[in-house]
Amino acid sequence: MKRVKLALLGFGNAGQAFARLLCEKHDKIKQKYGCEVEVTAIATNSRGNLVSADGIDLEKALLDLAESGRFKDEQSLSAMSTMEIVKNADYDVLIEMTPLNIFTGQPAISHIEAAFERKKHVITANKGPIAWKFAELKEAAEKAGVKFFYETTVMDGTPVFNLVDKTLQMAEVTEVSGILNSTTNFILEEMAAGVPHEEIMERGRRMGFIEADPAMDIEGYDAAAKITALLNVLMDAHITPDMVERKGIEDITVDDIREAESRGNVIKLVCRGVKEKGCVKASVRPEEIPKGDMLASVNSTTSVVSITTDLMKKLSVIEHEPEIEQTAYGVFGDLLRVLGE
Amino acid sequence: MKRVKLALLGFGNAGQAFARLLCEKHDKIKQKYGCEVEVTAIATNSRGNLVSADGIDLEKALLDLAESGRFKDEQSLSAMSTMEIVKNADYDVLIEMTPLNIFTGQPAISHIEAAFERKKHVITANKGPIAWKFAELKEAAEKAGVKFFYETTVMDGTPVFNLVDKTLQMAEVTEVSGILNSTTNFILEEMAAGVPHEEIMERGRRMGFIEADPAMDIEGYDAAAKITALLNVLMDAHITPDMVERKGIEDITVDDIREAESRGNVIKLVCRGVKEKGCVKASVRPEEIPKGDMLASVNSTTSVVSITTDLMKKLSVIEHEPEIEQTAYGVFGDLLRVLGE
Repeated sequence: MKRVKLALLGFGNAGQAFARLLCEKHDKIKQKYGCEVEVTAIATNSRGNLVSADGIDLEKALLDLAESGRFKDEQSLSAMSTMEIVKNADYDVLIEMTPLNIFTGQPAISHIEAAFERKKHVITANKGPIAWKFAELKEAAEKAGVKFFYETTVMDGTPVFNLVDKTLQMAEVTEVSGILNSTTNFILEEMAAGVPHEEIMERGRRMGFIEADPAMDIEGYDAAAKITALLNVLMDAHITPDMVERKGIEDITVDDIREAESRGNVIKLVCRGVKEKGCVKASVRPEEIPKGDMLASVNSTTSVVSITTDLMKKLSVIEHEPEIEQTAYGVFGDLLRVLGE
Repeated sequence: MKRVKLALLGFGNAGQAFARLLCEKHDKIKQKYGCEVEVTAIATNSRGNLVSADGIDLEKALLDLAESGRFKDEQSLSAMSTMEIVKNADYDVLIEMTPLNIFTGQPAISHIEAAFERKKHVITANKGPIAWKFAELKEAAEKAGVKFFYETTVMDGTPVFNLVDKTLQMAEVTEVSGILNSTTNFILEEMAAGVPHEEIMERGRRMGFIEADPAMDIEGYDAAAKITALLNVLMDAHITPDMVERKGIEDITVDDIREAESRGNVIKLVCRGVKEKGCVKASVRPEEIPKGDMLASVNSTTSVVSITTDLMKKLSVIEHEPEIEQTAYGVFGDLLRVLGE
């Protein structure tokens, strides 16, 4: 039976959820795709790295982490750095889940480039590379004759890129919009409900919606990276996040929200991209949305992408309150594409 | 170059829109799929039938219809009946778009069965066969080694069946719901807006939302057929439309709508299917939906399907105010699947 070897870069909540899913579905994959999927390397920032060409015991690795916060498998522990793993470990598919630097897309971009040089397939859950360097990476994958999938980078495992790629044949995307950042969505909702600022931030942090430094979300950088990724893939936009006309929710006051309400509207941070004179123009900004509109119903961690094409007009895909398992499924679904195509 | 020959059963608005799309994209299909798509038969109820193994001049056929309401191509006009065409004409793909008998699925089912007997691929835009006899037809297609696609039967070309089939690998559908009938959606909205009954019906007929005999929509038969089709395909339900617990909007009064409004709700005709003790239970009934809910924002001819799976939880797909071109694209997309797989 064919062995397919994975190198996992990053093993945080999403990486661990992916590993659990892989353990759970191991036998079914074998049955359906006729191959034995094994993890031969795991690179982390602070939990140690594991490398074993014979395959890592994933269940033990998960257990060790849960018990002690570190890997403990003496045989597989490795002093190789993340980049050394990318360049030298024995794997077929690189799965890029390292933390994102939203201003550069690094080091994920370098990892992916190095994997393509070795003619390895790549799956990324990291939107940085798609936002900052998609066209070049896609070309490198094509030259190397390998697969390059990135469904998870926008709306987790909810089909967006694969939806257009697999089910909207010959339709040309002319417009994309959506609500893509749950932190700002949560904050605007809580503000509208009259919750004081400090309490919103505290509750959001406790629930995991708000990061220690929330500026990336609040000022619209995260949303800008996501709409850039969407437009690069779906509309060949050739843009980077710094080209997005970006305005976050930092200046939105409770008074603004009340005034919008008096007009029957709510305020949402909306991403948009549209073709104008052959160029794709992208924006992220707070907009007043009529209460009866579909966008107004997108609350909490729910998100939505609307895609307009020449042949199918406008359709929308909504992901309802995802959890970490939905991120894991995004990576898993891309892995199944690698196995199946 | 490989020729792919189509037999079109039914040539109403959707069939003609499909024919126009085919003419428009003929060269691009050739380029992308390396085949020459030709129509070798068109069967209609009252406009005559065309049969020509060398290929029908589609643009002329469309023009003749537009000018005189009948086919006029002397060379291709045929006395063959629809079923004779299915059984004897020279084609590779049967495209079933005949009018639906919602209580039997006929004659579409017989057309499809006869095509499978000849080992021909089938695309149906007609939901009857999927609602009444899906499992058997699917098995017949597999036995014959041919393709059988039906994206258009629910929400036109908006990816629903193809979405699950192509982008949600290994995820098991556990629940399906949606708003799938635009006639009732339109009527409920107009009632809420205070439009008198007679005026609603007249306006709806003029706009093409309401059929001469609206009972199929108003009493929920159309919605029941659609949820049945969804559940048969996505959940292996093995049910027929008469097994759906069905309640239409025939008894909904303006008072009911006002009372719902006083509770912050709107009334929508909602389809649901869920697995209970190994069996799929389906229902169609008016429900009160909170105004902030995504379902409440689905107005006019917009429709929505929500799909819950074990691995991806709930996602929704919305089709925004489709026109006949979106129906045509559904058939077209299925044709591209036949050509590409």
